[in-house]
Amino acid sequence: MAATRIGFVGLGAMGTPMARRLVEAQHHVTGFDMRADAIARLVASGGHGVASATEAARGADMLVLMVINADQAESVLVSEGLLDALQPDATVIVMATCAPARIEAMAARVERTGRGFVDAPVSGGVVGAEAGTLTIMAAAPDPVFTRAKPVLLAMGSGLHHLGQKPGQGAAMKIVNQLLCGIHIATAAEGLAFAERAGIDPKLALDILGGSAASSWMLKNRGPRMIADDGKVTSAVDIFVKDLGLVLEAGHALRIGLPLAAAAHQLFLAASGHGAGAKDDSQVIEAYRALAPKR
Amino acid sequence: MAATRIGFVGLGAMGTPMARRLVEAQHHVTGFDMRADAIARLVASGGHGVASATEAARGADMLVLMVINADQAESVLVSEGLLDALQPDATVIVMATCAPARIEAMAARVERTGRGFVDAPVSGGVVGAEAGTLTIMAAAPDPVFTRAKPVLLAMGSGLHHLGQKPGQGAAMKIVNQLLCGIHIATAAEGLAFAERAGIDPKLALDILGGSAASSWMLKNRGPRMIADDGKVTSAVDIFVKDLGLVLEAGHALRIGLPLAAAAHQLFLAASGHGAGAKDDSQVIEAYRALAPKR
Repeated sequence: MAATRIGFVGLGAMGTPMARRLVEAQHHVTGFDMRADAIARLVASGGHGVASATEAARGADMLVLMVINADQAESVLVSEGLLDALQPDATVIVMATCAPARIEAMAARVERTGRGFVDAPVSGGVVGAEAGTLTIMAAAPDPVFTRAKPVLLAMGSGLHHLGQKPGQGAAMKIVNQLLCGIHIATAAEGLAFAERAGIDPKLALDILGGSAASSWMLKNRGPRMIADDGKVTSAVDIFVKDLGLVLEAGHALRIGLPLAAAAHQLFLAASGHGAGAKDDSQVIEAYRALAPKR
Repeated sequence: MAATRIGFVGLGAMGTPMARRLVEAQHHVTGFDMRADAIARLVASGGHGVASATEAARGADMLVLMVINADQAESVLVSEGLLDALQPDATVIVMATCAPARIEAMAARVERTGRGFVDAPVSGGVVGAEAGTLTIMAAAPDPVFTRAKPVLLAMGSGLHHLGQKPGQGAAMKIVNQLLCGIHIATAAEGLAFAERAGIDPKLALDILGGSAASSWMLKNRGPRMIADDGKVTSAVDIFVKDLGLVLEAGHALRIGLPLAAAAHQLFLAASGHGAGAKDDSQVIEAYRALAPKR
């Protein structure tokens, strides 16, 4: 496989290790981020740094966007001259978590220039990004997907092709976040109930984790709900955003999502209580604020 | 260990294998159920059958109640002469799923006669009951728990002593059902969303089951949400009842349970749609009725 010239925009907690994996896979990676220290990290690991998104796109075969949200992705794509700077047969890969309707609009914009577009959000967090074991939920026409596949496989071992239509990957990520967000809030609701009922929450967690009541989030976030160690794997405000996206996508599809809506309110309440930047396990603060341990 | 004389009331889908395991552990088991065929099954496996709860209690060291709910358990305990029929130092073990406040009242009634009371609800279903691998969430004063322990261990390998106060076991079971019920409804909400968004639900289930979005219920009930095979492991109306108990217990403790409340509405809606006796995975009917696949 020949080296691909890759422009990479968005070198945050996820983007940095993803770009590094592309470098390690012998691709020619040119990265841009708003923060100079993020660019410096990429350069230190063997990539190239530039001063704008358009420069990162210049001459690239693939442009990967791992920015925060759809607003940032769109603002990159409308950067002056950016699309023209790409190779005429280049592929744009958007890996940020966005509402499906926003992805559809971005894809249309890119495809009008004759270039390919891959909708490819990820799950697996920083740990998965560093290990190259991300789950990638891709949607693109077959030939476009096939072209992007080697690049995607350098970042994620769980590569799924959801369908031909950009937006289907985003929708799958939405379903993923719907379950993740509700499961975190459910673990908080259960453990706050246990505390209120005078049950040892550690024993409760032990029993629940070994029963049909278990979830990945219960086991992962539960211990930090009982004793906050101050570590932040993902913040409460990320789920304020992501469950907001879930509801926006449900709105567009005209499907009521009562559990996602209730869970969203709990993350909002926890954020209002001052826990927005804390680990998402601290959504339990919303319960404790209303019904303290007795 | 000497054989214990055990009265067993409630020989349903769970009670029958539980009583059989006590027989197999060399205890002297005398059973009663409203249905004659259930008594006949116990007799066939080496137990003794009688015609009333009071006769099952006569001379017994332990009385196990595995009836449907608190109403049935209370009606057994007030049966004429039942408590007097037990040995003076006997122990009453209530294993049905009941609201904690109801268990507290039953315990007080039994303890007033000088006898012991163990609050010991279970999880693990019929499969666990048959294999003797039930999780038992027990609450009783230490000496009472110690006396009941060998009998409990014949039915469940996951025996937990939650505390000294009957009602704490019931509260733990409530937490368990809270998570189970919400997780089933969440799986339905996610898969209904996937169907509505035009994502292959089998692929969605595969991706979710391998990610942080996973839950025991998603993996177990998810396949039957996508293709109902008509099998009923536990019915929609069981969660109409159990999430009702969860909310009743939350009410008594003055703790708001917004996710449990929303999930309860979904099981109620599915029951109203005609799915009450179907497998609880069919709570997805509530979503499909409102937002059919497009």
